[in-house]
Amino acid sequence: MQALRDRIQQDGQNLGGGILKVDGFINHQVDAVLMDQAGAEFARRFADAGATRILTAEISGIAPALMAAKHMRLPVVFARKTKPITMPDQVFLTLAPSHTKGRNVELIVSPEYLASGERVLIIDDFLASGATILGLVRLAEIAGAKVVGVGALIEKSFEGGRAALESLGIQTISLVAIASMDDGQIIFAD
Amino acid sequence: MQALRDRIQQDGQNLGGGILKVDGFINHQVDAVLMDQAGAEFARRFADAGATRILTAEISGIAPALMAAKHMRLPVVFARKTKPITMPDQVFLTLAPSHTKGRNVELIVSPEYLASGERVLIIDDFLASGATILGLVRLAEIAGAKVVGVGALIEKSFEGGRAALESLGIQTISLVAIASMDDGQIIFAD
Repeated sequence: MQALRDRIQQDGQNLGGGILKVDGFINHQVDAVLMDQAGAEFARRFADAGATRILTAEISGIAPALMAAKHMRLPVVFARKTKPITMPDQVFLTLAPSHTKGRNVELIVSPEYLASGERVLIIDDFLASGATILGLVRLAEIAGAKVVGVGALIEKSFEGGRAALESLGIQTISLVAIASMDDGQIIFAD
Repeated sequence: MQALRDRIQQDGQNLGGGILKVDGFINHQVDAVLMDQAGAEFARRFADAGATRILTAEISGIAPALMAAKHMRLPVVFARKTKPITMPDQVFLTLAPSHTKGRNVELIVSPEYLASGERVLIIDDFLASGATILGLVRLAEIAGAKVVGVGALIEKSFEGGRAALESLGIQTISLVAIASMDDGQIIFAD
């Protein structure tokens, strides 16, 4: 997606250690129009997936997943990292290691909103090692749902997440792929 | 806003203690089309506010704020509750008591995305006591920005937040107002 690639080139910052700062348009300040365009692109790319529901993880997955949900006219569920008091006692929960937090985080979904037989499209901001997204895949499986696709705004293709997902037979699409962040650079894959 | 009111009537649950569960369409599963309609309504109601930026708090404020930002073609910043590693050391930070968490939470914004002279529109899911929104107002003031309006999807008008905001001279608009949640009921204000 050219507009997203251009924006990364213009405003993305390589902080070293594989960390790409996109706080100016995705992770802290959000460019809602750009996210809307990304949502339309996900809708187009996953038009034939037969998804019945979109699943993401709070916090930074919400913007692209919400926009994809709007274009696909599907409900979107964001997995919580802490259990709110409004959630029932019995939940679907898995642990996922967080690269940026240096510890495991919980991913929690209420059984009210993820049911057996659903066809789940997972949308997130980043596909890196795949740790968070694989956590979402496990949540869907616990619920008896089928994951019909994974979409990410930005793939760091040097971190191996795609191979893990494709080995599970999951169609995986990123809107922009970054091949290398060595030496302070941001080298796109295509 | 009739569609939101209807949805609360249909799917909202009064859990007691003033807690309105709207996890099926706002706080866990999100109805993106409804949020898009709410965003359009905020854009219409605040068309003359001269806002240059939208501010909200993670997590549940993101959906309505993002949709308002899309319709108003403004950047939206969501205050973080924990400081990510991508954020500079010097930040704007305030504490706000959280009703549902029973403790203070931090609200943190990077000075990169909230500058002196900005005209800030605050959008959130709930206006109850106003504690979170008043925290966002303080963040804007610390930054030297002016708050030109506050919009909430749902106002619990029996909790006093509106009076606190209006005493500061801030235009406050809610799309649906609830007058009472006594005896397990949900009584709308209008």
